[in-house]
Amino acid sequence: MPMSTGDPVTLKDVAARAGVHPATASRALNPETRLLVSTGTVRRILDAADALGYRPNTVARSLRTRRSQTVGVLIPDLTNPLFPPIVRGIEDRLAASGYVALIGNTDLDDERERLVFERMRARHVDGFVLATVHLHSPLLDEATAAALPVVLVNRQAEGYNVPSVSVDNATGIAMSVAHLVALGHRRIAHIAGPQDVSTGLSRYRGFVAAMAAHGLSVDPSLVAYASAYSTEEGERCCRALLVPEGGCTAVVAANDMLAVGCYRALEATDLECPRDISVTGFNDMPFIGLLRPPLTSVSFPHYDLGTEAGRLILDRIAGPGSGPVEPLYLAPELKVRGSTGPARAGR
Amino acid sequence: MPMSTGDPVTLKDVAARAGVHPATASRALNPETRLLVSTGTVRRILDAADALGYRPNTVARSLRTRRSQTVGVLIPDLTNPLFPPIVRGIEDRLAASGYVALIGNTDLDDERERLVFERMRARHVDGFVLATVHLHSPLLDEATAAALPVVLVNRQAEGYNVPSVSVDNATGIAMSVAHLVALGHRRIAHIAGPQDVSTGLSRYRGFVAAMAAHGLSVDPSLVAYASAYSTEEGERCCRALLVPEGGCTAVVAANDMLAVGCYRALEATDLECPRDISVTGFNDMPFIGLLRPPLTSVSFPHYDLGTEAGRLILDRIAGPGSGPVEPLYLAPELKVRGSTGPARAGR
Repeated sequence: MPMSTGDPVTLKDVAARAGVHPATASRALNPETRLLVSTGTVRRILDAADALGYRPNTVARSLRTRRSQTVGVLIPDLTNPLFPPIVRGIEDRLAASGYVALIGNTDLDDERERLVFERMRARHVDGFVLATVHLHSPLLDEATAAALPVVLVNRQAEGYNVPSVSVDNATGIAMSVAHLVALGHRRIAHIAGPQDVSTGLSRYRGFVAAMAAHGLSVDPSLVAYASAYSTEEGERCCRALLVPEGGCTAVVAANDMLAVGCYRALEATDLECPRDISVTGFNDMPFIGLLRPPLTSVSFPHYDLGTEAGRLILDRIAGPGSGPVEPLYLAPELKVRGSTGPARAGR
Repeated sequence: MPMSTGDPVTLKDVAARAGVHPATASRALNPETRLLVSTGTVRRILDAADALGYRPNTVARSLRTRRSQTVGVLIPDLTNPLFPPIVRGIEDRLAASGYVALIGNTDLDDERERLVFERMRARHVDGFVLATVHLHSPLLDEATAAALPVVLVNRQAEGYNVPSVSVDNATGIAMSVAHLVALGHRRIAHIAGPQDVSTGLSRYRGFVAAMAAHGLSVDPSLVAYASAYSTEEGERCCRALLVPEGGCTAVVAANDMLAVGCYRALEATDLECPRDISVTGFNDMPFIGLLRPPLTSVSFPHYDLGTEAGRLILDRIAGPGSGPVEPLYLAPELKVRGSTGPARAGR
């Protein structure tokens, strides 16, 4: 492609060079209408466009077609290592279809989420991929009312007919509990995630169900509720669980950030992981296997979660389906590492 | 804000409800022209816009003003832990000024970079923040010719008058070398990054200069060149450096990914870090202090790199300055951790 000069090359310039009417040039340059023009003419027009460095005015076209070929992606916080591979997967899938991703961090703050959502709507995105929504979401009400394509990734919402892709949370937690039970643990604690988001709630429910399946009761003093998926909250919750001395021999954390917080809490005690306390995480974040000790964690293909979300939103933009949609679940896998060991006798 | 219904609310609707001319409503709704309208009228118009759920048509406005209030952000790979905090900083700074970020991963592939760049231009971004460019970049030629605002982050290019913000690479490497020399190391190896990007070249030059400052020569057999900033390349380079048995007692890696590759290479030998070989990284990626052993690394405020890049591109969009621009450097800091120790006698 030649270097761009000051004035933008217009469709008229291309048509003039190719010796055709601008309407013919327009049809030839648009992949959706190209078949209406003879092959030789298409070739001549594409050559002219190439030679002139013609760049279609997508903004003007989006006014005509109401398609901007952009998708808004809202995530809680890109610096949480779970999200980069998901966003990368979304972006790769969108790019393969000529789409561009707009990105916004919300910190799970409703006001910021609303603001970013509105700004992206004002820029006429064709749809949204949301990794942010709570179980009940005014944004989803609004998107549904406006027939705006939306897909949820790593999250689900209750009572909305919106496609979603996430890991099977209950099965993942059940794998952690089964692993700990096999190691002889009985008094197993849970650091639950925020209960107003689907991951927090479904992992908590999965924990209760898995304990019951092994004939174990859930001691309410051995469940701590984190208000956010942060190492700080994990540290605070773990400290609370350690107060009844010998209360538990293992902690199932609702995600890896909370598990890393457990490591920090244990550092301040004479308890060692896994000698005294086993710890499991969820997400299998990059580099988590390099921690000291390497963290046993529920793994799932983050990147694939992103590409699937990208595929679903493109499908939805191409033609909003009718009828109910089924949530898509990716299978979890337990990566057993050094943070889990046999339950210590006498504890 | 009320729920959106089917038909979009127009400027005329707002003007009618407020009892003013549409032109007045337009001036009141645009922060840049709001001062031309009396305060009471502005309040009435904003109330009307709120009550109707008016959403300005940014696409149409971008055709008139030639401002889309979007910025394209190109990074090599979001799953490299260095980039999420930088992108987060850019997005936060842009959001504070009503801008939205478009994001694209290039994998440092020129063709993909070109494609994403063109797609973003076609969507009329107001400018670009590039974390991808090589020392010589056809994209920068083109952006300069088209008077398109561009800012470089974590990278510099040679011979272009483009603002940039990055860490002071030479000083950072000098801190690593000084630390190792103080520990008694003399035979210090370097795993250099790709030499066609500024970080790779300036850290290599910084290494040579720092060694000379301590009266040490650089043994060519103790410099390995990575073709990418990946753990795989770090592992390969470290293996090559270990071939002359006892050749070096310390490795200064050009970044943390390469240093993690060193850990992997050492695992396959009977050498231990730091007992036999000290290793330093660069970037102080999140969680790198939790590795076994915790990595000594050159740190700098990644998030601030992003906010500064955001500020620079907004400045540039507001009014492209004249005259030469000076690169902006953030100060590095050496985080000394467990991967560096005294040089072992006899090695």
